[in-house]
Amino acid sequence: MGSLDDVIAWRDGHVVAIDQRLLPGELRMLHITGVDDLVDAIATLAVRGAPVLGAAGALGVALAVRQGAREGWDAARLDTEVKRIADARPTAVNLRREVEAVAAVIPSGPDAVEAAARAVLDAAVDASVRMSSRGAEYLASSLGSRPLTVHTHCNTGALACLGWGSALGVVRALHDRGALAGVIVDETRPLLQGSRLTCWELAQLGIPHQLACDGAAPFLISRGMTDAVVVGADRVAANGDVANKIGTYSLALAARRAGIPFVVAVPESTIDAATSGGEQIPVEQRAEDEVTHVLGTPAAPPGTRALNYAFDITPADLVTAIVTEDRTIHPNG
Amino acid sequence: MGSLDDVIAWRDGHVVAIDQRLLPGELRMLHITGVDDLVDAIATLAVRGAPVLGAAGALGVALAVRQGAREGWDAARLDTEVKRIADARPTAVNLRREVEAVAAVIPSGPDAVEAAARAVLDAAVDASVRMSSRGAEYLASSLGSRPLTVHTHCNTGALACLGWGSALGVVRALHDRGALAGVIVDETRPLLQGSRLTCWELAQLGIPHQLACDGAAPFLISRGMTDAVVVGADRVAANGDVANKIGTYSLALAARRAGIPFVVAVPESTIDAATSGGEQIPVEQRAEDEVTHVLGTPAAPPGTRALNYAFDITPADLVTAIVTEDRTIHPNG
Repeated sequence: MGSLDDVIAWRDGHVVAIDQRLLPGELRMLHITGVDDLVDAIATLAVRGAPVLGAAGALGVALAVRQGAREGWDAARLDTEVKRIADARPTAVNLRREVEAVAAVIPSGPDAVEAAARAVLDAAVDASVRMSSRGAEYLASSLGSRPLTVHTHCNTGALACLGWGSALGVVRALHDRGALAGVIVDETRPLLQGSRLTCWELAQLGIPHQLACDGAAPFLISRGMTDAVVVGADRVAANGDVANKIGTYSLALAARRAGIPFVVAVPESTIDAATSGGEQIPVEQRAEDEVTHVLGTPAAPPGTRALNYAFDITPADLVTAIVTEDRTIHPNG
Repeated sequence: MGSLDDVIAWRDGHVVAIDQRLLPGELRMLHITGVDDLVDAIATLAVRGAPVLGAAGALGVALAVRQGAREGWDAARLDTEVKRIADARPTAVNLRREVEAVAAVIPSGPDAVEAAARAVLDAAVDASVRMSSRGAEYLASSLGSRPLTVHTHCNTGALACLGWGSALGVVRALHDRGALAGVIVDETRPLLQGSRLTCWELAQLGIPHQLACDGAAPFLISRGMTDAVVVGADRVAANGDVANKIGTYSLALAARRAGIPFVVAVPESTIDAATSGGEQIPVEQRAEDEVTHVLGTPAAPPGTRALNYAFDITPADLVTAIVTEDRTIHPNG
């Protein structure tokens, strides 16, 4: 029970989701029947990744409506519970946006709410598959029909994005058409999403892959071991500057020096026309112990201070192409 | 008991050394009175770093001579024991070289052997201090007298090099002259020498420092958070290409883009005139479980394959200066 098609879904009137806290050690499904459990799953990162959080918010409204019917909530109580879902992770814009979109359908009744929630998931899956195919097509047409080796970073597959994912969706689409030789996966310190999640997803899909430390990536690229770098993004500015998981910028520098494409795969919703350039994107700083410790074990002497920026900015001039579900953008003309 | 001046030393007829396996958790001195224990300390990385291994080899010959006198070894037995020391780590050229140099003095008697062994340590310390001063002088004259922030990689201090170290010696020399604002230390996956050893050394010296993940380094450099990158090297080719711990090349790429100096501090013995360029340097590949595991804990699913190159090659065109105990080389004229 449980597969990459079940990252989060609506089943028999409740939410089922992979508990991502337990990966890669264990694949266990959460069965969430009430708002308390959903809020807890979101807050503790059992459910994570921007599009997945959007889906969790949409399904959460349907869940709240069902629970309210069972427990006799009035409209004010239902409104309060829906807001708790939207607030479960304050910085997750997808979560809030999809909660509000589906909550607007509540006056039309429970069936309409569930249909609207499922439509959010379907749209995310559809965008993912179209983006993945477009990315694979772009790489194949740029680099020829030989099987390609792709270097990627962090986790951008179904666990984060639903469907096929973003960058990892491009990898999967190449694999599907027999055009993939393999994937090199950065471990992605500090939280090791590459080691823990991406390697797990690729193993589930039977896609050949090798793990590498983040610092090794530029050397591997310099040695001709990869044909293209493909990554996702947290935000793309109007000028094409890309904010993505810390460690991305070094891949772009190395790809430029090696003369290979640096491709960003994102849904259209990630392109932020209101942000003119990367210098306007605030870069989140997270807890220092994510750096001083690894998997909970201290690596540095007690009292060591650390810098922990969660993402970095890759300037548009280093970006070969940005691929979405609708178009392929070349920031450098 | 135990400090950075006691990384390895000759005391009362035996070898004392910091047990580097226990750092940063515990500072414990090894007291080594026989060849068996010395070979074990070298093989298990209790004693590590090229110049430190050279010192261990030199002192090891004196140790073998003492033990032979106590236990009545004949010349053949002494020769066998000395060879065991030289072979304790097959790839460590410094170890073998210094064992052979001091063994050549055996016919002159025990006092001459101990004097020759101590001279090896004194020469390493002297080279380190001169290299450190030269590097600090170079940076101060290039960048002006404001206190500098230096970005460094791996462990290049007394624990690896004796004396003040190489790159970390330059840092210490800047600190000594009041010209250092602080140090940013890469954690240096897979073996975390930055977190474990460099942060420990800098704490011992009271030098302000912050730890960062390797993938973060290019972004920190791009944000103007550091004035210069200073690293050591495992080998420098005749054309100025630099082999150093994996993760170094990305610092050079980022430094070039940011327009800050990328400086390599090495003893003259590390410059290999017989190697014309970096493409001739064989790059060691180490065990995959160093990447799939962190501090002994599995990070990736069982069966995950990994790439584990121990060092990378930085092309000479990205190197601003190479500083040794005797000269400052500008590979780009």
